[in-house]
Amino acid sequence: MEKIYFDYAATTPVDKGVAEKITPFLEEKFGNPSSLHAFGQEAVFALDRARESVARFFGAKEREIIFMPSATVANNVAIQGALQKKEKPHVVTSAIEHKAVIEPLKNSSAEVTYLPVYKEGVIKEEDVKKAIKENTVLVSIGYANSEIGTIQPIGKIGKIIEKENEKRRNKIIFHTDAVQAVNYLPCKVDKLKVDLLTMSGHKIYGPKGAAALYVREKTPMSPILFGASQEKGFYPGTENVFAFAGLGFALEEIKKNDSEETKKLRDRIIDFVLKEIPETKLNGERERRLPNNVNITVEGAEGESLMMALDNEKIAVSTGSACASNSLSPSHVLLSIGLSRERAHGSLRITLGRYTTEEEVDYFLEKLPPIVERLRKISGK
Amino acid sequence: MEKIYFDYAATTPVDKGVAEKITPFLEEKFGNPSSLHAFGQEAVFALDRARESVARFFGAKEREIIFMPSATVANNVAIQGALQKKEKPHVVTSAIEHKAVIEPLKNSSAEVTYLPVYKEGVIKEEDVKKAIKENTVLVSIGYANSEIGTIQPIGKIGKIIEKENEKRRNKIIFHTDAVQAVNYLPCKVDKLKVDLLTMSGHKIYGPKGAAALYVREKTPMSPILFGASQEKGFYPGTENVFAFAGLGFALEEIKKNDSEETKKLRDRIIDFVLKEIPETKLNGERERRLPNNVNITVEGAEGESLMMALDNEKIAVSTGSACASNSLSPSHVLLSIGLSRERAHGSLRITLGRYTTEEEVDYFLEKLPPIVERLRKISGK
Repeated sequence: MEKIYFDYAATTPVDKGVAEKITPFLEEKFGNPSSLHAFGQEAVFALDRARESVARFFGAKEREIIFMPSATVANNVAIQGALQKKEKPHVVTSAIEHKAVIEPLKNSSAEVTYLPVYKEGVIKEEDVKKAIKENTVLVSIGYANSEIGTIQPIGKIGKIIEKENEKRRNKIIFHTDAVQAVNYLPCKVDKLKVDLLTMSGHKIYGPKGAAALYVREKTPMSPILFGASQEKGFYPGTENVFAFAGLGFALEEIKKNDSEETKKLRDRIIDFVLKEIPETKLNGERERRLPNNVNITVEGAEGESLMMALDNEKIAVSTGSACASNSLSPSHVLLSIGLSRERAHGSLRITLGRYTTEEEVDYFLEKLPPIVERLRKISGK
Repeated sequence: MEKIYFDYAATTPVDKGVAEKITPFLEEKFGNPSSLHAFGQEAVFALDRARESVARFFGAKEREIIFMPSATVANNVAIQGALQKKEKPHVVTSAIEHKAVIEPLKNSSAEVTYLPVYKEGVIKEEDVKKAIKENTVLVSIGYANSEIGTIQPIGKIGKIIEKENEKRRNKIIFHTDAVQAVNYLPCKVDKLKVDLLTMSGHKIYGPKGAAALYVREKTPMSPILFGASQEKGFYPGTENVFAFAGLGFALEEIKKNDSEETKKLRDRIIDFVLKEIPETKLNGERERRLPNNVNITVEGAEGESLMMALDNEKIAVSTGSACASNSLSPSHVLLSIGLSRERAHGSLRITLGRYTTEEEVDYFLEKLPPIVERLRKISGK
């Protein structure tokens, strides 16, 4: 068996077709879109086509799509940009957001309400309504969680905010980090009723270095980076045509039926683990969950030890989100759904993707039980 | 004759060898460096190797190199980061900086002194000394100008600041945007005596989407983007391994003798134009100038018309810096060296590079005179 990759939530390989379409942008079609000559205009054309593709996917206008170098920068531009020049702003978010949302909020002057997600890992939309105050400027709720895969009711929250905004002069801005959702969930911005939406290229089989921020027209936003006027001034600097074009092509490859196949494989893993390995638990609700996410706690086996042992068998899984996996503190997401610190350390994340096969799942389910048994013996539990 | 590219200051094609080395990072070696499994560690290895290469080139320590998505972001992190948490800061810069330096300064609360560059396009280091005040926090001077190619005496300015800092408790931070210099000029940070240095991948035959900021140890800086802790917290988010690796490989390909060949070709163009086409003028001093830059004013012919006419002959040149070429206002750089608004509109920038051949220069010098003559007839001058 070749190396098996079960960490698609961390990053994805670039789709073969996408890679083939964008490699010419390295040596041949290398122009700077700000140049008026033929080389430059060829780059403008590629950028326009990519923007069209992103706009189409989200049901947005092309002028509402801002290319970004990463979802983290997009979230910073969204959050810092929405909060700037606001007096004593209040923000509503959830307790299980990605660091790229939590950290910009923590480093702002905003008062922040963190909504609970209960043991299911899902917020209740009525909690959003209760949390909104007179000075609420922004609501930022991730669409699907990167660690436990739970899906938040973005459209319903959008409706609540829309209704609230009817009564207000200073409208509340609604942002969602949809990085993990784009592959699998409906993403039309008018259905979701969001003003700002973040998505990333390298989570959808596009290249790293490309992301996009949807900014609904007339959303009051100030830029946080300054330079020439590219990307409406929100991401100034020479456009990464190679990567932005790749993001556009990658979106065109997303197919709904990816989801069904992946869900079947995911369910095989969940059912097997819960049935065949005693004292295991699925973290986060099973129903409102991404079709590619498995997150389990294995009593008596450290998540990191499991990950390392599986890596020895050439199976790549994760203990939490990749961005947190270098850190020794337990996952704030798992603590938020009620796990003890010890159990939060014990979790394992398996995320499947477009290239996952039945054979890979078979191999994994063959290797996992003896590894768990061995680790439990070592830990004496 | 194939299409001729004489706009290397705007962007460069990716070197063939570099492109070959990095394409495997798209589909095969696609891991997220934050992942602890084999895929992730392969990415960490590539990133480490790239950082080593950047550090070696600049004579810096690896921990002083911060990867960035673009020089514009690097300049924002440098400037905003150095000014944050400072009371009533004062900054010294030059009148001919790139927008990626001017705009972060304009959008800060800092008081800014813009040093003159005289008709030569070069600042006098004694002017820096005179401009420094008690509350000066930052001096930011570009190493080589993107439009007229003039070279600033960075090492000498560095010495002045070093001497000044001996007397001060709050040290002045010295930043240089070296984007245009890296291909041709000595760049050891200890010789230049800079604390912060910005460089860009796509100007040195590396990919777009990669840049680096050198940050001397102990330089007091605050981050402006927040998320997970990648790049020491100054550029959080999943690293663009493909592009950062490419930046490292591209630096390894820079050879000093590139410079001599290019200079000969540049001098042929300058000599021909000044001698054979009446009423032409070289903008910016000839001696302290990048070996690849020609910037001329052609009396009675609009720069944009010349550019378009040359584009029709498949020769790509520029009217100013690419980032300003979409704008209709005359170049602030040319105004700063004393050109009238009208003449500033009339300038043409020809920037040569690694793949420029004698045949290309011949072809250009054959096509240029009749184009100038034709445009002069049309304009009646």
